Amino acid sequence: MSMDSAIASTDQRFGLRRSVRLPGPLRLDSGASLTPVDIAYETYGTLNAQGSNAILICHALTGDQFVASQHPVTGKPGWWTRAVGPGKPIDPERHFIVCANVLGSCLGSSGPASTDPATGEPYAMRFPVITIADMVRAQAMLLNHLGVEQLAAVVGGSMGGMQALVWPTLYPDRVRAVLVIASTARHSAQNIAFHEVGRQAIMADPRWHGGDYYASGDSPSAGLAVARMAAHITYLSEAGLTEKFGRKLQAREAKTFGFDADFQVESYLRHQGISFVERFDANSYLYITRAMDYYDLAEDHDGSLARAFSETRARFCLISFDTDWLYPTAESRVIVHALHAAGREVSFVELASPYGHDAFLLDAPDMNRVIDGFLRACE
Amino acid sequence: MSMDSAIASTDQRFGLRRSVRLPGPLRLDSGASLTPVDIAYETYGTLNAQGSNAILICHALTGDQFVASQHPVTGKPGWWTRAVGPGKPIDPERHFIVCANVLGSCLGSSGPASTDPATGEPYAMRFPVITIADMVRAQAMLLNHLGVEQLAAVVGGSMGGMQALVWPTLYPDRVRAVLVIASTARHSAQNIAFHEVGRQAIMADPRWHGGDYYASGDSPSAGLAVARMAAHITYLSEAGLTEKFGRKLQAREAKTFGFDADFQVESYLRHQGISFVERFDANSYLYITRAMDYYDLAEDHDGSLARAFSETRARFCLISFDTDWLYPTAESRVIVHALHAAGREVSFVELASPYGHDAFLLDAPDMNRVIDGFLRACE
Repeated sequence: MSMDSAIASTDQRFGLRRSVRLPGPLRLDSGASLTPVDIAYETYGTLNAQGSNAILICHALTGDQFVASQHPVTGKPGWWTRAVGPGKPIDPERHFIVCANVLGSCLGSSGPASTDPATGEPYAMRFPVITIADMVRAQAMLLNHLGVEQLAAVVGGSMGGMQALVWPTLYPDRVRAVLVIASTARHSAQNIAFHEVGRQAIMADPRWHGGDYYASGDSPSAGLAVARMAAHITYLSEAGLTEKFGRKLQAREAKTFGFDADFQVESYLRHQGISFVERFDANSYLYITRAMDYYDLAEDHDGSLARAFSETRARFCLISFDTDWLYPTAESRVIVHALHAAGREVSFVELASPYGHDAFLLDAPDMNRVIDGFLRACE
Repeated sequence: MSMDSAIASTDQRFGLRRSVRLPGPLRLDSGASLTPVDIAYETYGTLNAQGSNAILICHALTGDQFVASQHPVTGKPGWWTRAVGPGKPIDPERHFIVCANVLGSCLGSSGPASTDPATGEPYAMRFPVITIADMVRAQAMLLNHLGVEQLAAVVGGSMGGMQALVWPTLYPDRVRAVLVIASTARHSAQNIAFHEVGRQAIMADPRWHGGDYYASGDSPSAGLAVARMAAHITYLSEAGLTEKFGRKLQAREAKTFGFDADFQVESYLRHQGISFVERFDANSYLYITRAMDYYDLAEDHDGSLARAFSETRARFCLISFDTDWLYPTAESRVIVHALHAAGREVSFVELASPYGHDAFLLDAPDMNRVIDGFLRACE
């Protein structure tokens, strides 16, 4: 029996490859409203009678709702099967697990590729600029639809961690535990700079056409690939790159004195760029990186990060990785200090990994133990 | 009286805005030969009667020969007037200073924009792939032309430091002192990765046309600007970016919820990209980054960096900056250890600076003191 077949057979709201069109309107931080709001999502496990075992998993920039199920485009297994599944810390036998494609993305939730009801054409760059908080508001609408009043926990890594942190600030009574992995309370100047490079790479591609490329059957794939390559470097540690590739040559004995991918790391990066464009929309990349750059939890609370957490009674757990230079441990410490200042209960651990920011997506037994321990302690 | 007028009036080899066409052939590491070899250069000061006061300054990736004289395109003062000039550590009153545009560049020395004598057309991507050692060989040819038999010192930061390190390995008896600032003995996987992003950004620009854009009057400026933006982030420290820009908005009170450069750091980066393309050739960027990626001094000496320095009797001085994450202090230490193993005399200092890799181009009184002390000790 597959994870979800029991409930899938009785209630079409639950299961794999679900999507819902909610009338909204969703009021956005920009002042604009969005209607309708499409949300594509996956659920695993069953909501218990008390409604007390729901866990929302929030995905990262280029992630998706297929946290523990096969990706429909790539055919690859879910992106977090190491942490989510039977016998794993987030377990459909015990938890009712929800993961939704974020607003602005391109795997079924409303985003720039969606049809603008006002014109019948794709929104493209007429889609409203969104924020991390807007993504969270859309998730809350989905939970209403699913009949989930309160989350046992909200969990996320990277941009997913940003959403997890925003949850108790917008819905202080609606979440009992918050688990934030390899994340930050605000995007730094360097974070913004890397994203801006990516956006400029996309917008410099003549096939971007100001965002109106959907009808052409073409897309700014070259620009998007460059954006992905630049970002991908930030996901890996210098030591990890050296360990994995060093200066090893790619399937050749000697340098070619040309511009082919002589080095394995070049070949690897090109592959990352090329494979990414098959599964991701360039305009979505623009919108989601913008949301991340706008993200600054303290700014949204009169400059006080502690104030953001003054209303919630949720328990917090933060995990960072020692080689993560995108959202380094110091950023997690800032959050921990603010939570202490707000009188919240928080545990924090920095884990050792050679893999940099991407460590949370890789085999990390220590991380799994921390997740498992925290979730059980919060039950 | 300007710095150079005394000699400029008597010998046309010396002075500002000089260039020479040498017949060559220059035998390159790739096996190809280059003929003729154009070298554009600047000299400051006068070679003394003993010929013992010559200092060669080697420039960085996007640097040029205008180390202490006005740039002909931008009109800006020389890029290292903080260290080179009357009363400065490298002083035309005491030293005969030479700085040449590196082979492969675009400020007058032979590079992809030069005319291929075989076709009468620009080389473009038919220019041979060059190495850091090839750049040094061209510099040695220039010194022959100038009648400089031995260098009192070779000095360089970043890619200039690579050339400075290669000098005593190719010409062990021709250099008495080697000063290497913010540099490395090899390009790491992460270094290569960032360069590959830049190259892909250029090559993805349809206006690159496989390198044959010179006749069109057009150029892949959008791709080159993205390449520059990505590289520029690596020249600055995270702390420096935060101090300089943080999340400050650019000439506005609030976020615009759009894709303009809301943040100062975005505006700054865009400016860096746009202004760079006015003074630099995209194909040169491809060739020089390739040379840097190929650079691995140990690899050229049977895997032993110490062996690279076994023949020279030069004295060495290395300077690194604590916030430089492009060529961090650890890379300088590797060189220092190898020099010790080779029995060479070497001094090393890590300087504190908030400015990352770019620190060597900025106001750095500590660096000036170290340069001055080292050069005087070697006299």
